[in-house]
Amino acid sequence: MELLTINNVWMMICTALVFFMHTGFAFLEIGLTRQKNTINILFKNIFIITVGLLLYYIVGFNLMYPGFAEDSAGIFEFAGFGIAPPENGMTPEYADGGYTWWTDFLFQGMFAATAATIVSGAVAERMKIGPFMIFTVIYVGFVYPIAGSWKWGGGFLDQLGFYDFAGSTLVHSVGGWAALVAVWLLGSRIGKFKNGKPQAIPGHSIPLATAGVLILWLGWFGFNGGSVLSADPELTSLTLVTTCLAAAAGGVVAAAVSFFKYKNLDLTMFLNGILGGLVGITAGADVMTPESAIIIGAIAGTLIVFAVSFVDAIKLDDPVGAIAVHLICGIWGTLAVGIFSTNPEHTFMAQLIGVACYAGFCLVSAFLIIYTLKKTVGIRVSEKEELEGLDAHEHGMDAYPDFRLNEH
Amino acid sequence: MELLTINNVWMMICTALVFFMHTGFAFLEIGLTRQKNTINILFKNIFIITVGLLLYYIVGFNLMYPGFAEDSAGIFEFAGFGIAPPENGMTPEYADGGYTWWTDFLFQGMFAATAATIVSGAVAERMKIGPFMIFTVIYVGFVYPIAGSWKWGGGFLDQLGFYDFAGSTLVHSVGGWAALVAVWLLGSRIGKFKNGKPQAIPGHSIPLATAGVLILWLGWFGFNGGSVLSADPELTSLTLVTTCLAAAAGGVVAAAVSFFKYKNLDLTMFLNGILGGLVGITAGADVMTPESAIIIGAIAGTLIVFAVSFVDAIKLDDPVGAIAVHLICGIWGTLAVGIFSTNPEHTFMAQLIGVACYAGFCLVSAFLIIYTLKKTVGIRVSEKEELEGLDAHEHGMDAYPDFRLNEH
Amino acid sequence: MELLTINNVWMMICTALVFFMHTGFAFLEIGLTRQKNTINILFKNIFIITVGLLLYYIVGFNLMYPGFAEDSAGIFEFAGFGIAPPENGMTPEYADGGYTWWTDFLFQGMFAATAATIVSGAVAERMKIGPFMIFTVIYVGFVYPIAGSWKWGGGFLDQLGFYDFAGSTLVHSVGGWAALVAVWLLGSRIGKFKNGKPQAIPGHSIPLATAGVLILWLGWFGFNGGSVLSADPELTSLTLVTTCLAAAAGGVVAAAVSFFKYKNLDLTMFLNGILGGLVGITAGADVMTPESAIIIGAIAGTLIVFAVSFVDAIKLDDPVGAIAVHLICGIWGTLAVGIFSTNPEHTFMAQLIGVACYAGFCLVSAFLIIYTLKKTVGIRVSEKEELEGLDAHEHGMDAYPDFRLNEH
Repeated sequence: MELLTINNVWMMICTALVFFMHTGFAFLEIGLTRQKNTINILFKNIFIITVGLLLYYIVGFNLMYPGFAEDSAGIFEFAGFGIAPPENGMTPEYADGGYTWWTDFLFQGMFAATAATIVSGAVAERMKIGPFMIFTVIYVGFVYPIAGSWKWGGGFLDQLGFYDFAGSTLVHSVGGWAALVAVWLLGSRIGKFKNGKPQAIPGHSIPLATAGVLILWLGWFGFNGGSVLSADPELTSLTLVTTCLAAAAGGVVAAAVSFFKYKNLDLTMFLNGILGGLVGITAGADVMTPESAIIIGAIAGTLIVFAVSFVDAIKLDDPVGAIAVHLICGIWGTLAVGIFSTNPEHTFMAQLIGVACYAGFCLVSAFLIIYTLKKTVGIRVSEKEELEGLDAHEHGMDAYPDFRLNEH
Repeated sequence: MELLTINNVWMMICTALVFFMHTGFAFLEIGLTRQKNTINILFKNIFIITVGLLLYYIVGFNLMYPGFAEDSAGIFEFAGFGIAPPENGMTPEYADGGYTWWTDFLFQGMFAATAATIVSGAVAERMKIGPFMIFTVIYVGFVYPIAGSWKWGGGFLDQLGFYDFAGSTLVHSVGGWAALVAVWLLGSRIGKFKNGKPQAIPGHSIPLATAGVLILWLGWFGFNGGSVLSADPELTSLTLVTTCLAAAAGGVVAAAVSFFKYKNLDLTMFLNGILGGLVGITAGADVMTPESAIIIGAIAGTLIVFAVSFVDAIKLDDPVGAIAVHLICGIWGTLAVGIFSTNPEHTFMAQLIGVACYAGFCLVSAFLIIYTLKKTVGIRVSEKEELEGLDAHEHGMDAYPDFRLNEH
Repeated sequence: MELLTINNVWMMICTALVFFMHTGFAFLEIGLTRQKNTINILFKNIFIITVGLLLYYIVGFNLMYPGFAEDSAGIFEFAGFGIAPPENGMTPEYADGGYTWWTDFLFQGMFAATAATIVSGAVAERMKIGPFMIFTVIYVGFVYPIAGSWKWGGGFLDQLGFYDFAGSTLVHSVGGWAALVAVWLLGSRIGKFKNGKPQAIPGHSIPLATAGVLILWLGWFGFNGGSVLSADPELTSLTLVTTCLAAAAGGVVAAAVSFFKYKNLDLTMFLNGILGGLVGITAGADVMTPESAIIIGAIAGTLIVFAVSFVDAIKLDDPVGAIAVHLICGIWGTLAVGIFSTNPEHTFMAQLIGVACYAGFCLVSAFLIIYTLKKTVGIRVSEKEELEGLDAHEHGMDAYPDFRLNEH
């Protein structure tokens, strides 16, 4: 009883911290974009968390944790609408104390919305809100939980030995692949490329962006710490240590590489390096030594700098660096488990297969959804609306009506 | 001993989360008002939390939990100044583990200030700070704890079977009734009504308002989760699930209703819908199924849209929507317990009587305090001060001195 | 096992809260300074937390907790690079449950960065970033942990009976003494003194400053609450009560004294009073009655008002009031243990000796580092850079590119 209670308290706290990450995402996204699209981004974030939670209640949880039958292929099953807790109200699989079914639902529900939030940042400042809402409903309600069932729900990738502790792939890459597709189908913002050269479009509030990253880091205490699925002292605390060291190493290395590459103390790169380190450690935070965590973070930090300029070079416009942070570092972190894990059962090959399966499923799903939307209702706002800002056109509101603003 | 420790940890965390709600309230209130009154609102919020805590230490706690004598009418008792913990330092009434007297005081103290904060938002941009401080001292120090003693202190409404889990009535309506009285006695801001028609006075920072609502939602994990008064796994986690689902449903429905009514994707309405859902579920978060929670939230979300325009229609000027959110949804949530509770002892009649008792006591108390202030020192700033902003006149400070501002 | 788990959960939560304080410091520092130096301050804060954590991993933890040999003088020992957990992974010294080595490292690591953050605020708007980074590395990596070992590591001051529960001296004064030296060697900002008279240089975002203080207060739940080093219900909850009451008293008294002195409702003084109360209670939060806590906070609040004007009077330019808050109230809080502690073993003399030892060591260390930097690479930016802002020159970025700004 005591262990059940303490596990449950820890999981509830982690749930709260993961919920708070949505404030972090919101701050980061609006901070790195222009003020004229602020309301639009906030509206999307609020939509994602509320609708995401309701969808996860209605279908998501039972798509993701269907309790695959023994002879199932482990690809798709659905345990029914709504959530019906088992008789004793506890999650059966964690016998050393366990925690409650309600907590399980809520913790996982907070994760679900994250995938769509990643896309939200990538398509910022030019995507119509209606189609984005449709995409969110399908991706959060169906694609994310089905993909999640393959590993966390006990599906075929779990049986194959694929490991993803807290979601470098299941959350971050799942969002990242869709971001890639969306950014490609959507095209770049007006003014992003001039004569083929990428132009900086500075974000309108670096304090909010910085606060966003710090809040996300804080939220990661719950994101990774809660993924232990109990309050096991050794595992939870090791996880927090590897998480924080990877974040620190990612930030410092990204700032250093960026300084040597561009001769500039670039705060944005510092921040994205921290996020890269966090995404990178997420797949194996519980099976790493602190030394491995620092190495994983440092490599993630390096990747970030080159990935950001590579995305620019191939003419994709990703205003907040979502592809570099969530997709590239998500892949890296997943593969890193095959290299650095202290658990000898984890293999590079199983990790590679996992990455490939998610790549295939997410690319195809995201393409089908977004391409269909593009060919039917259209996904891009008019030129006039883009130039004047989505806030005025889609919402009839102004984020900062008391301040005098520059035109751009 | 273990259960005592874990209960106490949970209650301390919830205390911290409820404390953090004051940051949420501050952000929401300044975000939805004009920049020229920002310092004034922040000063009031800081005043409320600091003075509120000290008052609760000096008189509030012992007014609210006087330990009514057996033959008492259960209306008013006072257990003395300061707080004197029982010999074992534990709260006696929670025998299955309990938690400490110190935690009990601090958790309840964090609640106390909330009532005045609700009023602060409603009277923003035109009330003199001196009278507001006097009002706060009386309302937080005396009216709130006496009202609270009727139910949570074991008073007559508790004996009558009235139920208010975490304060839809005891906190939110208690603040809401006073907000109603204050707004009525104070009159509307200059420019709010032109030829009898309500004019939008846009808030100066929608990012801060949005962050405020997300922080309030986070804080509600502690507000409702801590109101279980133990870390009971089943009850705390069910409470968090109902709380979050009601918030999500409230937001989505308010946004939808507002879209059909005004053909606009209104972020502010979305945010107020979330708050309405949270206030609505608060009275019965521990005795609801998730389905009932969604219905309660959805109705709260609908009420918000109509209540906001009703308040406008009767020519009351409530800049942040406090009356709609805290009073209307507070009443709705309290009555909803009589309809949806899984506990058959809860009756609609008992809930209605409870609502009526609080309405009477709060309306009379608030009227006596504010009317007296109006007739003596005056409660409204001069026209010049209102137009130029309370920051310059009451505080001699500027919230954003580096930014160029629009006149309005 | 249960008690180990619950202690560990509490300590992890407190770790997260102390981490969150860095968001609070960042908000407070940028809020109280001009927008043209915002990126620079944020960069320093992000640098401090990331590099601080890595340094604490590499050398800090084992400098601070070297496990002094029995015949050691208790002044300096080093247990080796990296962290090597004991075989059972638990901290040995807390036999009544304990918590893990990983948690211990991370909790202490979050503290380490704080000392440099205090300096960051004091030198804002005019110090070169390169030398600041060098200073941070030395001060956080070596000075702070060696100084800390004297008491928390079981060194000579611990054996002498000196008491500092959570770091009024070990954290706040250690930062404060360095701030004093840095401010003195650096000189005042251009325009701070005109004809010998101090001029107000208003901060650019009072909402962020206010949020910063509220976040710091929240973080103090973990800073002090975690310093119990277990989840002991009586001690942790008493600590939170004394912490919050001192904060409230500090704020209210600072606002009141400032009102009587300057006839102004000064929000900044209110905020600094809260911080002063928090710093003041930190040395003895677990050995105070609530009454003593209120008195300590009230005296801290009074000290703040006079210390801020005294710092001005001796022509030191401390943009955020770091010396008044962290040094003066840190000393006061440490001495107050000798006066108010409920533990008869605490003596005023031992406290005074402790304060003197830290003063000597920190003043000398900070002077050697900063004076060397001044005479070699130089510590102050050029006049042109100071006038145009450090953001443009050191980072090539603009914190608020969409907003029109005033020149000053």
